[in-house]
Amino acid sequence: MNGLFITFEGIEGCGKSTQVRMLVESFEKEGIAYLCTREPGGTQIAEAIRAILLNPLYDSMKPETELLLYCASRAQHTAELILPALNEGKVVVCDRYYDSTYAYQGAARELDEGLIDTLTKFVTYGRIPDVTFLIDLPVEIGLARIQSRSLDRMEKEKADFHQRVRQQFLSIANKCPSRYFVLNGTEDATVIHQQILTKVLSLLGV
Amino acid sequence: MNGLFITFEGIEGCGKSTQVRMLVESFEKEGIAYLCTREPGGTQIAEAIRAILLNPLYDSMKPETELLLYCASRAQHTAELILPALNEGKVVVCDRYYDSTYAYQGAARELDEGLIDTLTKFVTYGRIPDVTFLIDLPVEIGLARIQSRSLDRMEKEKADFHQRVRQQFLSIANKCPSRYFVLNGTEDATVIHQQILTKVLSLLGV
Repeated sequence: MNGLFITFEGIEGCGKSTQVRMLVESFEKEGIAYLCTREPGGTQIAEAIRAILLNPLYDSMKPETELLLYCASRAQHTAELILPALNEGKVVVCDRYYDSTYAYQGAARELDEGLIDTLTKFVTYGRIPDVTFLIDLPVEIGLARIQSRSLDRMEKEKADFHQRVRQQFLSIANKCPSRYFVLNGTEDATVIHQQILTKVLSLLGV
Repeated sequence: MNGLFITFEGIEGCGKSTQVRMLVESFEKEGIAYLCTREPGGTQIAEAIRAILLNPLYDSMKPETELLLYCASRAQHTAELILPALNEGKVVVCDRYYDSTYAYQGAARELDEGLIDTLTKFVTYGRIPDVTFLIDLPVEIGLARIQSRSLDRMEKEKADFHQRVRQQFLSIANKCPSRYFVLNGTEDATVIHQQILTKVLSLLGV
């Protein structure tokens, strides 16, 4: 028995966290066993890596360092938390996964995609998400939404950086239509939630 | 003008740190411009990664995570500290570098050597040390020497782990005779230091 592996992707401010929360609330109501987690982070070691990655004081961080820290965090998170939960038959909901690495470190930081392929196989132990919800949103709307937050190291990047991230997500969604489900992030959160829930329940055969 | 890049390798307790200190004291006396550093660590970000790597409480760390954290630390250290110092013409003395990854994560943790090759090229930006001093020592002598210390996560590994590390260092030294200089760690520290200093001064043409 192997659980359903759901990931959420999108630019900053797209509403992922809200959708993750709403989905999990539905699981609670339906009595569906789940694990809700996020990247980078999810375990004690991975959260310690997250604290380095998002520290706004570390603006001297090299793109190579950043890529390897995200991958290190993913290896730990996948092996220690995600794979065991899937093996127990739980639905796993993860806020960001490896597509974010292709978007942020690949497209936006311009690191080699072949290397990201190699690393991704290594740190996911070959497990691909069953469904990925991309909440697509124009960059200017996303950035306007997060303006009032205290921004982390990634959020502080300029608009054209986030533009490359958005385009890469859309490009991956085009290449992986069977895994990807693209949602319009300008719609009302409850409307988006209904679309996601319908898809998930159908995948679960509920 | 490009400086001389010196690395030190060996098992725990082999006397690397003593030799690094003695070499640097000789540089001070001779008025030779140098940078003395260590791995993992050497810069603020790399030292934060070091703190995760060596935390004795993190015994659930996966080998994949460990490899990528060492590489992340090396990328930052090399780009931010080592390469700029070499470009200024300084002698760089580094306590451990990528050969330790082949020994600890390759031989001892049995991770794929081809992947370590790929990662090493990526995080060293192609710069190979000019000379590597391997202070070779039987494992039981090295471990006896560090017994009184509060041991870190790597030092706490069992004797056969350190045995694989030692054998891998010797094997690399055999494969790279022009770069490697192997010293007998059971000899007196001042005798070892003289051998190292003679080699370094000849390489510097002093």
